[in-house]
This record gives sequence, C-alpha cells and structure tokens, in this order.
Amino acid sequence: MNKRKICVVVTARPSYSRIKTALTAIHNHPQLELQLVIAGSALLDRYGNAVDFIEKDGFPIAAKVFMVLEGENPTTMAKTTGLGVMELTNVFYNLKPDAVITIADRFETIATSIAAAYQNIPLVHVQGGEVTGSIDEKVRHSNTKLADLHLVASEDARERVIKLGEDPEKVLNTGCPSIDLAKTIAESPNLDFDPVEKYGGVGADLDWKNGYIVVMQHPVTTEYKESKKHVTETLKAIKALGYPTFWFWPNVDAGSDGTSNAIRTFRELEKPQNIHFFKNMDPLDFLKLLKNAKALVGNSSAGLRECAYLGIPVVNIGNRQHRRCRADNVTDVGYHEQEILEATQNAINREHFPVSHLYGNGNSGKRIAEILASVELTFSKYITY
Amino acid sequence: MNKRKICVVVTARPSYSRIKTALTAIHNHPQLELQLVIAGSALLDRYGNAVDFIEKDGFPIAAKVFMVLEGENPTTMAKTTGLGVMELTNVFYNLKPDAVITIADRFETIATSIAAAYQNIPLVHVQGGEVTGSIDEKVRHSNTKLADLHLVASEDARERVIKLGEDPEKVLNTGCPSIDLAKTIAESPNLDFDPVEKYGGVGADLDWKNGYIVVMQHPVTTEYKESKKHVTETLKAIKALGYPTFWFWPNVDAGSDGTSNAIRTFRELEKPQNIHFFKNMDPLDFLKLLKNAKALVGNSSAGLRECAYLGIPVVNIGNRQHRRCRADNVTDVGYHEQEILEATQNAINREHFPVSHLYGNGNSGKRIAEILASVELTFSKYITY
Amino acid sequence: MNKRKICVVVTARPSYSRIKTALTAIHNHPQLELQLVIAGSALLDRYGNAVDFIEKDGFPIAAKVFMVLEGENPTTMAKTTGLGVMELTNVFYNLKPDAVITIADRFETIATSIAAAYQNIPLVHVQGGEVTGSIDEKVRHSNTKLADLHLVASEDARERVIKLGEDPEKVLNTGCPSIDLAKTIAESPNLDFDPVEKYGGVGADLDWKNGYIVVMQHPVTTEYKESKKHVTETLKAIKALGYPTFWFWPNVDAGSDGTSNAIRTFRELEKPQNIHFFKNMDPLDFLKLLKNAKALVGNSSAGLRECAYLGIPVVNIGNRQHRRCRADNVTDVGYHEQEILEATQNAINREHFPVSHLYGNGNSGKRIAEILASVELTFSKYITY
Amino acid sequence: MNKRKICVVVTARPSYSRIKTALTAIHNHPQLELQLVIAGSALLDRYGNAVDFIEKDGFPIAAKVFMVLEGENPTTMAKTTGLGVMELTNVFYNLKPDAVITIADRFETIATSIAAAYQNIPLVHVQGGEVTGSIDEKVRHSNTKLADLHLVASEDARERVIKLGEDPEKVLNTGCPSIDLAKTIAESPNLDFDPVEKYGGVGADLDWKNGYIVVMQHPVTTEYKESKKHVTETLKAIKALGYPTFWFWPNVDAGSDGTSNAIRTFRELEKPQNIHFFKNMDPLDFLKLLKNAKALVGNSSAGLRECAYLGIPVVNIGNRQHRRCRADNVTDVGYHEQEILEATQNAINREHFPVSHLYGNGNSGKRIAEILASVELTFSKYITY
Repeated sequence: MNKRKICVVVTARPSYSRIKTALTAIHNHPQLELQLVIAGSALLDRYGNAVDFIEKDGFPIAAKVFMVLEGENPTTMAKTTGLGVMELTNVFYNLKPDAVITIADRFETIATSIAAAYQNIPLVHVQGGEVTGSIDEKVRHSNTKLADLHLVASEDARERVIKLGEDPEKVLNTGCPSIDLAKTIAESPNLDFDPVEKYGGVGADLDWKNGYIVVMQHPVTTEYKESKKHVTETLKAIKALGYPTFWFWPNVDAGSDGTSNAIRTFRELEKPQNIHFFKNMDPLDFLKLLKNAKALVGNSSAGLRECAYLGIPVVNIGNRQHRRCRADNVTDVGYHEQEILEATQNAINREHFPVSHLYGNGNSGKRIAEILASVELTFSKYITY
Repeated sequence: MNKRKICVVVTARPSYSRIKTALTAIHNHPQLELQLVIAGSALLDRYGNAVDFIEKDGFPIAAKVFMVLEGENPTTMAKTTGLGVMELTNVFYNLKPDAVITIADRFETIATSIAAAYQNIPLVHVQGGEVTGSIDEKVRHSNTKLADLHLVASEDARERVIKLGEDPEKVLNTGCPSIDLAKTIAESPNLDFDPVEKYGGVGADLDWKNGYIVVMQHPVTTEYKESKKHVTETLKAIKALGYPTFWFWPNVDAGSDGTSNAIRTFRELEKPQNIHFFKNMDPLDFLKLLKNAKALVGNSSAGLRECAYLGIPVVNIGNRQHRRCRADNVTDVGYHEQEILEATQNAINREHFPVSHLYGNGNSGKRIAEILASVELTFSKYITY
Repeated sequence: MNKRKICVVVTARPSYSRIKTALTAIHNHPQLELQLVIAGSALLDRYGNAVDFIEKDGFPIAAKVFMVLEGENPTTMAKTTGLGVMELTNVFYNLKPDAVITIADRFETIATSIAAAYQNIPLVHVQGGEVTGSIDEKVRHSNTKLADLHLVASEDARERVIKLGEDPEKVLNTGCPSIDLAKTIAESPNLDFDPVEKYGGVGADLDWKNGYIVVMQHPVTTEYKESKKHVTETLKAIKALGYPTFWFWPNVDAGSDGTSNAIRTFRELEKPQNIHFFKNMDPLDFLKLLKNAKALVGNSSAGLRECAYLGIPVVNIGNRQHRRCRADNVTDVGYHEQEILEATQNAINREHFPVSHLYGNGNSGKRIAEILASVELTFSKYITY
Repeated sequence: MNKRKICVVVTARPSYSRIKTALTAIHNHPQLELQLVIAGSALLDRYGNAVDFIEKDGFPIAAKVFMVLEGENPTTMAKTTGLGVMELTNVFYNLKPDAVITIADRFETIATSIAAAYQNIPLVHVQGGEVTGSIDEKVRHSNTKLADLHLVASEDARERVIKLGEDPEKVLNTGCPSIDLAKTIAESPNLDFDPVEKYGGVGADLDWKNGYIVVMQHPVTTEYKESKKHVTETLKAIKALGYPTFWFWPNVDAGSDGTSNAIRTFRELEKPQNIHFFKNMDPLDFLKLLKNAKALVGNSSAGLRECAYLGIPVVNIGNRQHRRCRADNVTDVGYHEQEILEATQNAINREHFPVSHLYGNGNSGKRIAEILASVELTFSKYITY
C-alpha cells in the first residue's frame, strides 16, 4: 500500500515548536510519509536558525526555501509572501504530496495555503479558528477559507471555524501539539541544564538559581512604528524590577527591527544588570525554562497555551493575543512601565496555577497523525450557508 | 482638501465590464482620485486585450503589471498569483492609495488583497458573499476575510458576508455595476452595429438578422482536464441545433487551453456552418448583442447577472455558477449534448423574461463611489464572534 | 567513486535538438550522472512541448520549471529571465550539481548562468563564441564571461572566446552536437515516415513526394514590431512559388505573436494551397525531412549548422544569423518577397552540396561527455589581459 | 526640446558615493532628466540606509525597490538578483528612460543590465574594464557585454573593454566620479566635525585627535565561509597595534554575516580599547576622515581610488582588489595578523603620498553628463572581431 505523503511547511521557529510532536507522529506513522519543508525565517541565523534544531531532532528535510526579503516592514512582508507562493508552488509541484499542512496564522502561512489550494492539493489548516489582533487575524481566517480540513486546538476554535461556513465533519479539535511537549515537561519538571552555559547569549551574569522570570515580546505588525516604544516600556519595567530575567529576541516580523533596535539601544545606554539575552533555545529546553520560572512576561502565545498547561503566571502585554482563549494564569496589561512592573511583581509573588486543558491534554500530535492517515482527503468545498 | 486615492486593480476583461460604471463614478467624483491598475490577462492579446478598450474609454492608467505565467494549469495559476503579490505590492507602495479595490473571485484577485492588507491599506472587496464552484469559491471568501469593507451585489450576498463574521456596518449592498450597463442597454435596446463587420472574428458567415444565440463557456478550474470534453459537448449540441451562433473564446484560466484546443479541433474537423467566433467585444456592444439574442448558452456569470436584468433566457451548463443566486431566466443543465440542445431549443422558442432586480437596479457605480467618498476607511478588524 | 553530477538546463525545443547527443553521452558515461532540468517554453504546448519528446527519448527529468511570462514582448522576456534566475537558483541549491551546462544564447540562458555562477557552481557554456544579431549577441557573450569552461562548436568560435579574455585551456572545440544527429541521418537518408500522417498539422493537403521545401522563420527580437511584416513577405513569396511547402510555427520570443498572427491572418485570407503547417517534430524526423527537402527557407540556425553537414541549400532571410559562420550552402536575402522567391527558386533547381565539417564531424556529444568527466572543474577566474 | 531621461540605479551605499557627482551633473544638466532608482541594500537600515543620505542630498527618487533576500549566502545573492531583474524591468517599463546606467560590478548590478538590455533600452556601464577577484570579476565583464556605452575610470580599463570586443568609439575614459569628491576634499582638507559626536557608533572612546587609522574590510564572496577567519586576523592585528581606529561595518554580500559575526564576537570577548565602530557615514565626511587618517586598512576599493588621489597610505588585505590598477600608496598583504600589523605600522610612520591621477582628475561627473547629453544612444551591437 502506498503511504500518504503529508507535506508540512515550517516557516518560523515558533511554528516548529508548535507542530513538533505532530511531525514526530506523522514521521513514525506506518501509513504516512512526512515531507518536511523548511522555509522563511526558520532558515535564518538572525531568527534562531530553527533548521539546525530540526535536523538535530532527526527529521529528514525534503526542501529548503529562502524567501524572506530584508527590510522588516509591511512591504517586504507582502513581497516575502508573494515569493513564498511562487517557491512553494514549485516545491509542491515536485513533491506531489497527498496533503499539505499550513500552520496557524503567521503572515507567510497564506503562501503555503495558496500554493496548495490552487494546485488542487488537499489543504489542512492547523490551529485555525482563534482570535487575535493584527494582520494574523486576517491571515488565519483566510487560511480557514482556503483549507479543506481544519485541525483546531480548542472547542472555542472549533465552533468558530464551523460558524465560518465550514462543514462540521471537516473541523476536528485535536488540541495543540505544543501541549504535548508541555505535558512531557510537566512530568519531569527539573531544569537539568544551565541556560547560560548551554546557550551563551549576551548581557548580565545572573544569579538565577533562586528565581527568575522569562520575557518574550514580539512586535505587533499593524503598529510597527510603535514597536520601539512598546518594548522600551517593558525594558524599563524589568530593569526597575531588578529581578533575574532571561529575555528572548523577537522573531521576524515587520517591526522586529524596531524591537531589536530598542533592545540594543537600551542595553548600550542603560546596561541593565538583571537581564541576560538569548537568541533562541531548543523548544524542550525553553519549556523547562518556563516551567521553572516565576513568570512569563511579554506577548508570546506560549503564555496562553503552554503556560496554561504548565500553570505559569503570565503577564500578557498589549493586544497581540487580544481575544485569544486564556486560562486563569494570564493577567493582561497595557504598554505601560508601571502596569507591567506591578503585574510582574504580583506574578512573582504568587504560586503557580493548576493544570488547564483549554488547549488539549497532551496527545495532539498522535491524534493529528491518526486523522491524516484515515480521513478522506478532498480539495473542493462549498460554504455551508 | 485632499482627494481620497482609490486604487482599482483590473486583472481580466470580464472584471472590467463588471466594474466599469464604478470606475466612471470614482473618476468623476469630486472627492475621489482614481488610480487604475491593469494587470494579468487584461494586458494580453490572447485574452482580448482589455487594456485597449479601457484606454479607449478614457480612463488614465496608473500602472500596468505583466504577471501571467504561461502554461494555463494549476501550477502556473498559483505562480501567477505569487508574482502578482510581489508586483502589486510594489505598485501600492509607490501609489500610496487610501483604499484598494479587489474585484470578485478570480484566482489572481487574492494577490491584490494580500498586497493591500499586508501593507495596512484599507481593502475593499466588491462582489463578495456569493457562492459558486471551483477555486473561485475559496478565493472569494478568503478575499472577504482579508477585506475591511464589503460592497456586495445582492441581499443574499450581504447576509452571507455577515455570517462570515464581518461587521454588518462594513457590509453594504450596492448591487452589481454590471447591471448599470444593462440598464443603459435596456433603455435603447437596438443592435446598432454589425458584429462581424465591427469585430471580425473567424468561422461561418451567418445570416443572423432573423435571430441568433450567444455562447460563452469557460473552463472550470478544478476539472481542467475535462475542459476539452465539456466544451465539445456544447459544440456538438450547437452544431446539431443549426441555429446562427456567436461564440466567444474563453478567458485565461487553467484549462482554457483545453477549451481553446477543443474549439480549434472541432472547427478544423467539423467545420460548423452556424458558428462565428469572436475573441472579445466592447462590454456595451456585448450587452447589446445579448439583449437582441434569443438566448445565452454556457457558464458565464453574465447569464445570471446582466441577463437577469435584460430578461434573456440562459442555458447554464455545469457547476461553474453552482449556488450563485439566479432569477427565473436561467435553466441549468449538465455537460451533455442532448440536454444542452433541448434546453437551448426551448430557450429560443420562448419570449424574453421581465426585468429582475436581483443584482441591483442600475445605479451601483454611483453608490460605490459615494460610499468610498464618505465611509470611514480602516485596516484592522476582528471577527464578530 | 562518486559520479560527477552534470546539470543541463534545456529551456526550448531547439536547444534540446542541439544538445541531445551530449545528453545521451553524459547519461551513458560511467563517471557522470545527468541531472536534466526542463524549463521555459520546453514545457509549453504552444511551443511544441519539447518535454514530451524528451521523456519519450528516455531521459530522466530532475526538475521542471515553469517560468515563461505571457506577453511575448521585451518586458515579459526580461521578467521571464528574472523568474528563471530565482527558480533555477532553487533547483541548483537542491540538486547540488558539480557543474551546470548553459546552452548557446537564447535570452533566458543567462538565468542558468547567473544561478550557477553566483552559487559558485562551475558553469559550462556550450556553443559560445559565435556572432549573430539581436539580443542573442549580448546574451551569448555575457554567458561566456560568466562561464568557467567553454565547449564551442567551431574553430572560429574558439578563437573568439579566447579573444574575449578566457584562458585558452578552458576553451575547447567539440563541434556542435546537432551535427551528430545530422551524421546519423546522412548515413540513412530516407524519409521513412509520412510527415502529415505522423504529425497532423493544419493547412493544405500536399503532393510532396516529388519534392518539397521547408520553411522556419523566427521573429527577430530587437525588431519585434516588424515580425508581422517580415514573415508576410516570406508567406507571399512561398505562395507565389506554388511549390509544396512544410512550414513550422516559430518558437517563443518577443514578436513570435506577431509572426504567429501574420501566419494565421494569411491562412484565413489567402488560403495558400501549397503550404502545410506543423507545430513541431521529433528532431531526428525533422532532420530527415530536411535531408529530403529541396531547400530550407527562413532564419533557423539549422540552416547554417545541420544543413551545412547535410548539404541542403538554404535561403537565409534577414539578419538573425548575421555574421554566424556559414558554408557554401547558404544564400542570404533580405525581407523582400521577390528576393526570397528568386533565391528559393534557384535553390530548388540545383543539386545538394557536399558535406561541410564547419560545425564538427559528428562525435561532439561523446567529446563533451569525455571532457566533463576528466576536466578540472573550477568556479573562479580572471580575465587573461 | 525633450530632455533625455537618464535612469541611474543605485543598489548600495558605496555605489552612491562612487556616482554622486555624476548624479549632480545629470540632475543639473539642461538637456538631461535624472530618474534615480534606489534599490537593494541602499534601502536597508542594516547596511547604512543610503537612501536617507540621498534624500538629504536633495535628489528626487523616481522609485524604490526592495529586493534583498535575507540569508547573505550565495543562494540568496542569486535570488536577489533574479528578483531585481523582475522588479527593475517593471520600473524601466513605467519610467521609459532613454538610457539606463548600471554601476561597476556588485552582484546585483547585472539585474539592472538585463532589465534594460532586454527591453531595448540603451545601457551605459560605468566603471567597467577593471580586474578584481571573486564574483565581481564575472559580473563586471558580463555587464560590459550587455552594455552599449562604456564610461570607464582609467586608461587601463579603456583598453581592456576594447579588447573585449567593444567598439572603441563607445568606450570613453571619464575618470571615476569618486575622484571628484576626493578633489573637493583635497582642496579643503580639515576634519571639520567630530566623527563620534556626529555619527555615534559603538565601541571604545578614542583619543583620536593626535592620529588615527580607518579600517573597512568586506567579505570576499567566493570565500564566504572564510570571512570570519579573515576579518579576525585584521581585528587581532589592529588590537595589537593599539592605535586609535575607526572601523566601518561591511556592506551586504554573501559572507557579510560572517564578517559581522566575527566583529561582534571579537568585541564581546576581547573588548578592544582602541577601536570605535561606525555603521556608515556621509560620503564627503568619510573622505574627510580618510584625508586626515594616517592610513586606511582593509580591502575597500576606496583605498585604490580615492586614496590614490588623496595620497593616503593603504594596507590592502587579500585578493578582493586583486589586479585592480593601483598607485604607489597601496601595500598589499595577506590575511595574516603579523603582516597586517607590520604594514599598518609602516603606513602610520610615513608621510602621505603625492596626488595620483590614475582614476581621473576630478571632473568625471561633468564629463559623464556631457557625454550622456550628446552621444548617440543605441541598443544593438556586434562584437568587433
């Protein structure tokens, strides 16, 4: 019997973390063949070179696609996407997959969707149906309308995708594969490595063993001119807090240069003594770091997903995660030093939260592989109303 | 006071006909400046060179964009779209419009949508909310999810766009501008030109003055390998019918080569004595030709829109217009010679129908311009549920 | 021992004919692995779909690249080339060849050269050093300056490449592989098939068995607006001649639409009774057809190369082959009906010519393979003066 | 009378410095209209955002083109070039220039050449005919073979272009416009600004008023993996020297990340106390800085051109300027700390050199404008032999 060829396109470091256990399950499934395509910022040093982690994790890579235009502004985001459509079309034409998976809502994911849908290849959208701010909101729902099968991460998302006119039989709640990793970590929660020793980074030498926090703040694209101002508020709050902090550089997006610049300038001028900066980290190590942190600060979706399962207090800044489902562990604040400072102080001072299953119970990767092996794959549909 | 710059991207001959009165109204509006971009097949000889008609109609053209890859298959459709994203991004970056209009649901219209939405330019989608078959169905609703303002052509469409989670205040039924032209024709319905003399074309010398029909059949993209077979059924039916017929070549689409090939082969082998072929026609002349025809046969959307207003009997073949709103003038048939032959015979033998206002009452162009001059233009939104 | 991977990029039907015996020799060489890339018009129906012949000939195809933009004007030629650079870069990145072969001087061949040279892959240019008119002249010598190894087709070409500042040790005269095929034909010269029966085509039913001529006239790119006029002179001359004629449609180039249009219009209006039209033909069959023809008329390079070896009289029209080396079989004429008519009449009335070895003696393919297996491959060079 | 439209494409900061006085002369010439296109890294912050300087200098910009792909490796260099061809083709199609100027030999300059040549626009190549190492060598001579008019910077270059088969009447020695700026500086040589105050930068606080050197070292593309090692030798030499040093970050090229990384790592680990780093500087200021320096170290072409005129001792490292014409002021060294250290020590200890006119006498910009206003512009040529 021929195996079904499942092509997954990973375009960024965070997308990899979010799909990893599904990749493993597809790779190991006797009726499936994984065709892994690494593209966009996942290939770039400046954004953490996810491809190195992916190869180290033992996944065979079917194709690599350079497609990111320099400039980090809305114009180059759009052109990157156009280039992605052209390149990924070629890749699918040659790989001839039985289905293509597009992940979530990053701006360039619509390139995967178009390249597959226009070539009549069944398109599977993972993690649709959620609600956030910025261009992601438009991209995510467009991916839904281009996709033939929807593997969503929560009940709330499932209902929303159905409301969008998709056939309920094609909308399945698998939970989020990122929770699978979180579950592993929750089962053996010790921080079994020294982050600075293992990952280098730059900045202050921290005494982090008695408690630390993690910061991860991405630019919000429709406000890219304000990225610099926004992250500076966070930088000031964290410096004022004086608590040991591991800070992660942002991933590629319009405005990320604003964010990066702000961080560099702040470092040069303010020389914060309580912040150490990392470019990136193996996803599992990152989760261990979170599990042992007092709190996560910023606007990463990890705050709403993995941290819900892990029970970590999260200070969620601004509107990047606006309206995305959240458990009790999340406190929302605006872009104001004082607000951020107070919320973070409170988070540090309290206990961790109990486990939440809002985004799944830890077996999403396997469910995704099983569905892909058994479901009828189609590439034509009508809106249900 | 600064005029609002409204950029309209026309990528194909039929899109031009469908938006023409809106272009005129925008061009003439004291508070609006028209930035007309002609792209894709609208620039190409093989598809009727719409750009010549547009220039003759007196519209200034802000930019021309060659973007169609040869091949007319799903792969080149996808690459054309990717190229369109890249090129149109440049165009908008330099024109700096206050709003961009994307028209309906042709595959390449999503390029316009992405290039505008990603650059935070308010995106207006015209003629969303309808339902049809093939890739158009996916593209149309994706355009809706990328757009900020929806100017739909019918009440049915308005309700569907709102169900898709769009803010009802941003969804306005303007009717279809193509009906504006139909209204003009309805008011002076004589065929005041000799089609063969004016447009040349190839094929039989027809005695059409005592009655004729018009055929226009496009390939359906998700069935592109069958295009040849499908159109051959129609060719056989029309030849068997023996009634004077004006036949229009298809526009660009995956499979159109199949259709064109089928027509060429049929001509060479069967030498039909009752069919004359045209490449294209000025939109007004085309409507006059329809108004004086006994029937329209094929799968053109003109059968459902303009012909509803004009009252022309339509034999609608196959699933290209599946589920699109239709008035009493439309008879649906499958891809079978006999079915097509009988339905066309019946259509020829009956009277024309009364006017239907299903797609508007003839003032859509003006309404669109007025809305664009007065509405608040935004580029950020959330799904309503 | 690892085989050397030799990547050959074929972008058009005539390039395939010209390289075919080298492909066979590379494919069969024990120390070489052929990576055949089919791109551009070689994939397109409208230009004879060379890919079908290539697959039928049993060559494995490593990648197919759609890259031709519609429009057939200088603007789309340039954009096609840009797209070719992007796509072929990807292809080479993934195939990791030890050397890339770019063929001759078609406009898009520089895309192959750039994609290889910029990635530090040794670039082999086949058939450089010749002189002709139009954009090919610029492209050919640019290919020379980008290439590391030059396999030229004549002594004259070898001397010219060396004058261009290339290291004489890197410039080898292999003769032209097209002569290898010509040699095979010369050895068994019978026309063992009925061209109309085997290849269909359109136009007059010819009584060709007692003598016929072949016409092949391509547009000349820097004069593309005049293509229509030029080919019409030839059409009128051939019609006036009244001699049985097999005419081949032109390949893709700016202006080819002018040529094709002119042919279509002439056929429709003049209904020439002595011309049958073909889209394309298997290269070997084409050579057999030439070998048995009274003359070749037009501007094909086959007139100067293969016909020199085969001894066929050639009426070479216009400046497309300006200054390319020619043997005694060629008569040059301008774009004038009368001139073409007289020269063709003379050609028909005379004997064939003796064999010329100007472009090789029939073992070029093997020499090319042997050189590629043994030569030192480098990717860095300095001009010699 | 219509002005001739001269389109100049500037793709990088150093190209701007090198063409600036010609831009001024074209802009001011009564019979010429300047169409200035800014593209590639000239638009990017990371490479010094040349566009800001250009706008401040008062030049109107006709179009901006984002075309640089991230990755800084041979693959993205090639794709950047392909994208450049596509984008610049559009730009020229819309600007309709009477001539296009392509500058020197950076990898992406061939995109300008192809976009112009293929559209039959007369192409002027500035600064051809020189000899260097790396991919530039191939690109420069390819530009020559695509160009119709050659404005070279030295007699040596003029002779070489003629040897390449160009018509001697089309090869004119104008000198290098960069020397025009050097001449201005030579006439008022005082350093009338404080570099750190005016340009910020990072690194050590220098006591530079009693003498300093300047370092500028770019990666060499065909050795991009060794960039890191090469620049580290220079860093160690300069640190060991202990002399006040202004160091400029490299411009965009494959490998520049290697160079940048090496610099960042060295700074973090070695904290050199005698080096201050700049991203970029207004070209005039840069020349003033050079004029007052004891020496220039690195591989910048400014060492061979401007410094020849200014008489500044230059330590030229490695093979980037291999075989380019040089005056007595240049000492060549390999990539070895000790060699670099000694040569730099010697350079600091000696007097400046007398003026050399090897690259012109300071009126190149005007000569270029005059030639462009009066010369016959053609777009078709044949090799001279």
